[in-house]
Amino acid sequence: MTIDELDTPALLLDLDAVERNLDRMAADIARTHAKLRPHAKTHKTARLAHMQLARGAIGICCAKLGEAEALCDGGITDILITTELVGANKCERAIALAKRARLCVVIDSIAVAIPLARAAAAAGIALRALVDVNVGQNRAGVAPGQAAVDLARFIDATAGLELAGLQGYEGHIQHVAAPAARRKADTGALDLLSETAAAFRSAGLSTEIVTTGGTGTSGFAAGHAAITDVQPGSYAVMDAQYGAVDGLGFEFALTLSSTVISVRGSAAILDAGFKSLSDDAGAPRLLGGGAAFTFAGDEFGKLSVDGRRPLAVGDTVRLVPGHCDTTINLHDEYVVHRGAQVTDRWAIVARGKSR
Amino acid sequence: MTIDELDTPALLLDLDAVERNLDRMAADIARTHAKLRPHAKTHKTARLAHMQLARGAIGICCAKLGEAEALCDGGITDILITTELVGANKCERAIALAKRARLCVVIDSIAVAIPLARAAAAAGIALRALVDVNVGQNRAGVAPGQAAVDLARFIDATAGLELAGLQGYEGHIQHVAAPAARRKADTGALDLLSETAAAFRSAGLSTEIVTTGGTGTSGFAAGHAAITDVQPGSYAVMDAQYGAVDGLGFEFALTLSSTVISVRGSAAILDAGFKSLSDDAGAPRLLGGGAAFTFAGDEFGKLSVDGRRPLAVGDTVRLVPGHCDTTINLHDEYVVHRGAQVTDRWAIVARGKSR
Repeated sequence: MTIDELDTPALLLDLDAVERNLDRMAADIARTHAKLRPHAKTHKTARLAHMQLARGAIGICCAKLGEAEALCDGGITDILITTELVGANKCERAIALAKRARLCVVIDSIAVAIPLARAAAAAGIALRALVDVNVGQNRAGVAPGQAAVDLARFIDATAGLELAGLQGYEGHIQHVAAPAARRKADTGALDLLSETAAAFRSAGLSTEIVTTGGTGTSGFAAGHAAITDVQPGSYAVMDAQYGAVDGLGFEFALTLSSTVISVRGSAAILDAGFKSLSDDAGAPRLLGGGAAFTFAGDEFGKLSVDGRRPLAVGDTVRLVPGHCDTTINLHDEYVVHRGAQVTDRWAIVARGKSR
Repeated sequence: MTIDELDTPALLLDLDAVERNLDRMAADIARTHAKLRPHAKTHKTARLAHMQLARGAIGICCAKLGEAEALCDGGITDILITTELVGANKCERAIALAKRARLCVVIDSIAVAIPLARAAAAAGIALRALVDVNVGQNRAGVAPGQAAVDLARFIDATAGLELAGLQGYEGHIQHVAAPAARRKADTGALDLLSETAAAFRSAGLSTEIVTTGGTGTSGFAAGHAAITDVQPGSYAVMDAQYGAVDGLGFEFALTLSSTVISVRGSAAILDAGFKSLSDDAGAPRLLGGGAAFTFAGDEFGKLSVDGRRPLAVGDTVRLVPGHCDTTINLHDEYVVHRGAQVTDRWAIVARGKSR
């Protein structure tokens, strides 16, 4: 079957482009002292995580415990969960997962640390943990410097926890378009993390892992002496939002195939809206250009077509999602293709695993 | 278990509030000549559809064939699909569904009609179809008046199709906040549909079904002589977007339970972002007020807390989603509750059924 014959909307994964993206990032990071720990919050599959590990990644990141459980079921056994785990259910599940995977968690307060420590100690294990440092994103994260050191001391001294270093994700810098401005902003964040890591070492605290970096900044972060590993996710498949960031060099491997169901004047109505394309990072882009997409409801999109590309009912088009992570999270499967040939379907096993 | 003990994020369905919403709409429509054909694109479950049918609904609407298949599997057998079905796969699946349900489709062009007609005729059946009329939403839909009559004649004369009337959804009017302005705008749309229905009758064409109406307009539409049935969806559960529309009187029955995972100054960071709350209709609202929610990424939200409502790590809050349809589509299950007691969990069987 070819991709033009698919029932739509269908989330297409161009495997040749994915492989080139994975190869490129692996080669870029291999030229540095740092390692690659890719984020699976984007692709949400053990299949792609295994491809990343086969290219030298030292482990996999997950944003949610539910993602980590699903990936562990798929054979992924070295997992960093990059979001604080809070609540009795989360503690219990984290301990269960730590018994079957090399798990590491992040902690940004004593309030987060204590329940995890108690659950781990009660189970007779020590849970590996990073101090999560706020390097400017102003989301989770303890303040850099002394506050981070104090929290690290607490973790280091608490039964049930094993301090493994620190995380300082600079998510606010990933989409700065111009490379020079992005590098400059990132250097500020990396310096905060680096200074805090130095303070850890001075205090005799572990800096085995010093992790940060997304698709927009991993090249900079991996070149910084203090950073041990980087955690980009979107580079594997890319999206329109990262397509507007200069200097990355990754290819659009993810598209949504959609069918024209109605035509009126210069507007073609598509069978894909908010329920198959996320809008949190703006509208998708028509692959190859020639028309502008606007959302027209939960199940509808509208293409404003110029004269060069007339569309008729039944035509299919391919859209590059505005944001890969949130669009992938809407779909149960990737339709995998090489060129125009459909070669496989992969379940998105961690889709909807938001707990 | 109580709702405060749930692992989060959890999509909560307040069954008492749902029942009051369903009762209220059923009673409102029962006072008119029109019937209720509620839209399941919102709730995506056979469970809720059966509750609507038990209160007098004459059938159920679906936006997608995949939703209709899932609801038919759950015992729903009278289904109107309100979106044009295009493509060979869709035609084949529609015919298969028409053999096990009383199915009706919508058609807005000859290009949509012909493949459906051929597939139905080849299978030896006549597919019931409405002419889909553009009454101002400017999405799908044939122009009202003569163009609609011409298309109806074509459907009426074509083997494999059985003309059953017309649809003219006024989606662009649903969220006009002021009742008087909403009624005025709706009257214009209803008149277009009514005039087209009159033209059908003059031409001897079926007007067995003349359907329109959403949560914002069903009260007006059901009072219009030409309308046979209305198709509201959101009223069953409501959302913040419809909460800003005056004069509806339905209750918030859908909330997302989320946990505070980090606190910094007046900001509480929640474990729910774009992957568990849609943003296409704006931010969710904190149930009970006292803080403003902003999205802080795929897995994070931020509450700006005022002095009256301090929050600590581990606290749970309940958020009213900005848009119910697209938020429900992110979740695999409803956690059903009465008061604070969790009473059940219902699979959202049509979640992600965007084909």
